[in-house]
Amino acid sequence: VGSTTARLRADRRTAICDAVFELLGEVGYDRMTMDAVAARARASKATIYRSWPTKPELVAEAIVHHFGDSPASPDTGSLRGDLLETVGNACQVAGSSDGDVISGLMTAAGRNPDLAQTMQRCMYDAKHAMFQQIVDRACRRGEVCSGADAGVLHEVLHALILARRMWDSGDLDDGYAEHVVDQVLIPVLEHPRRAAEVESARQ
Amino acid sequence: VGSTTARLRADRRTAICDAVFELLGEVGYDRMTMDAVAARARASKATIYRSWPTKPELVAEAIVHHFGDSPASPDTGSLRGDLLETVGNACQVAGSSDGDVISGLMTAAGRNPDLAQTMQRCMYDAKHAMFQQIVDRACRRGEVCSGADAGVLHEVLHALILARRMWDSGDLDDGYAEHVVDQVLIPVLEHPRRAAEVESARQ
Repeated sequence: VGSTTARLRADRRTAICDAVFELLGEVGYDRMTMDAVAARARASKATIYRSWPTKPELVAEAIVHHFGDSPASPDTGSLRGDLLETVGNACQVAGSSDGDVISGLMTAAGRNPDLAQTMQRCMYDAKHAMFQQIVDRACRRGEVCSGADAGVLHEVLHALILARRMWDSGDLDDGYAEHVVDQVLIPVLEHPRRAAEVESARQ
Repeated sequence: VGSTTARLRADRRTAICDAVFELLGEVGYDRMTMDAVAARARASKATIYRSWPTKPELVAEAIVHHFGDSPASPDTGSLRGDLLETVGNACQVAGSSDGDVISGLMTAAGRNPDLAQTMQRCMYDAKHAMFQQIVDRACRRGEVCSGADAGVLHEVLHALILARRMWDSGDLDDGYAEHVVDQVLIPVLEHPRRAAEVESARQ
């Protein structure tokens, strides 16, 4: 009986998360109502409010359900390979219908600090471990020094893809991924070693 | 008589541009109507439509009138000084009430391709000459090589400030400006020289 209950609960969660994600794509965050979510998922509003008292929390749940907890980091054997795969994946998502949902949420988040915080947590913070792993492996291979900062890597990549997607300022293709990796991300990651070399040459 | 007409025309342009800028701050782009602009500026709608047939064109005119045609580039005598002043200025504008208007326009632009193009032209393209001057002077001083790319500098700076402002992900203070300049922009601009050095060491 316990496992049946657990399965029913999981099925209901899936139905609610799918309903949220569909409605975000169809009507957007601002016009998505709890009534519409409940109707689409065939769930009671009380059930939804009990687990997810606010709209941002419901969105966070739907995002985690749709994209998974935190992405696995690519492991191609080189820093450049790992970065090209990471940026390529980000470009692919940004250019898909999932990207439309994310872009709509980010637009709504510009006017809604609670939603902005939620998006920060489940779309940004959740990916940090992946960037750290890429940098740690590059450091062990000797491609960057221990001063290389996964936080800056993440910050810059996130801002570039988001700006390009939100305001449609250019293609999100392989050429763009190479541009970002070779002209921005690798220079940023290699810089601490170079700064240390310049410093030690001075002494 | 000719100069009186020209002055009246300039006064009317100022009244219309001020009305647009105020209304953008008060009600935002989507709810700003031509009727409201005409009433606030004490101008006829026909007059407005004759010079600026579309809402994005009217916004472009108001932005150019408010911020000036294209900003003068700082000339502090060093690349780092010029970049710190440029990023500091951008942070200051982003954190002011002008930044609220820009941020509101960028939010609206996410759903309006015509407005996105207009913003690209009068808020992005118009600044390119300033970045080119900074890089050209740094190149003449020998701080960067001729491969240093003002376009990448502009792209990265724009995306970082905008993302931080739109989703309020942190302070836009002097510490942030230093972080952007020292950890991102200078590494990006210095990279082409280093790549050329590595290439020539190989040969």
